[in-house]
Amino acid sequence: MNILEELTESLSRLPGIGKKSASRITSFLLRADPAYMQRFSRQIAQIQEKIRPCSVCGAYTENDPCPICDSPSRDRSTLCVVEQPQDVQTIEASREYTGLFHVLGGLIAPLEGIGPDNLSIGRLVSRVKSGGISEVILATNPTVEGDTTALYIQRLLSGTGVRVSRLASGLPVGGDLEYADRLTLARSLRGRVTL
Amino acid sequence: MNILEELTESLSRLPGIGKKSASRITSFLLRADPAYMQRFSRQIAQIQEKIRPCSVCGAYTENDPCPICDSPSRDRSTLCVVEQPQDVQTIEASREYTGLFHVLGGLIAPLEGIGPDNLSIGRLVSRVKSGGISEVILATNPTVEGDTTALYIQRLLSGTGVRVSRLASGLPVGGDLEYADRLTLARSLRGRVTL
Repeated sequence: MNILEELTESLSRLPGIGKKSASRITSFLLRADPAYMQRFSRQIAQIQEKIRPCSVCGAYTENDPCPICDSPSRDRSTLCVVEQPQDVQTIEASREYTGLFHVLGGLIAPLEGIGPDNLSIGRLVSRVKSGGISEVILATNPTVEGDTTALYIQRLLSGTGVRVSRLASGLPVGGDLEYADRLTLARSLRGRVTL
Repeated sequence: MNILEELTESLSRLPGIGKKSASRITSFLLRADPAYMQRFSRQIAQIQEKIRPCSVCGAYTENDPCPICDSPSRDRSTLCVVEQPQDVQTIEASREYTGLFHVLGGLIAPLEGIGPDNLSIGRLVSRVKSGGISEVILATNPTVEGDTTALYIQRLLSGTGVRVSRLASGLPVGGDLEYADRLTLARSLRGRVTL
């Protein structure tokens, strides 16, 4: 295998990239700006050593604690609970949330052998119990595992007096009633909002 | 911008990769095998310096002349003319062709200011005229530019006594008459084969 084939092989291991896309990307890289190539190569070489999970919230970060946990301007009374570190960036991109985060590191999935003890749920409870938090927003995906995990955490926190909420589920903005599945439509009815 | 955002930005410049795919790939890379990451980074750093166009045929290669031009077992009397270096790999992957290649480096496209002089057509003619070649297969894409370029080369070579052929155009194998466009269907009728 020469370096062209090796690079194509490496690229085709990336999620969502097949053999054809990989060889198209290889052709692109052969003609790309050399400065970009140097930067790109260095980023791949360093990403794993530079990025660590934040010891407070579990989000990916270069500095510990992460800029969000460390920021004096964030609302420290609200905690948004997400499944994975990349969910933090997704929610940050909405520019709607100003509180803190807590990354679970997965969802409860008994069939895959993942129970509450494999997630950072214990640490979440101690964060809440250590005080100062008035609301916990459960932002796990609206799937069976996401709902189960949210319900489990809601029960754990039910005695603490903290408000526990869940992201609204319903029709996506810009979507079409005709293309909504039955369950989404049912949830959007149940969660209808008075105007 | 931290290194996570920088890597996502670099990834989103690749063809066919948007912002969402880029951040999914970044998450994948954070958890990937460190040995793979080292290899991948090195391949990107070295690809441009290691890979050159072959001085004979123009295909991408680590050694000059390329393994195909250099191989004693290839049929030296047939020349397959393609648009870009990556087309060589595509045709090699079919395992149907045993001759040599010639990469044009583009197609004639007057509207984009690309004329015959911007391509390696002159070098193709001298390769043919230097003797030993009995057939030139024009394997440019079945598009307006590909057809124009093929026609242009065919006329240039018409006095040389060399057989000039074109890849067959018609229904793709496994395709469906119903989904074939009018032009493809017309070509497949015109090019019908006696059984």
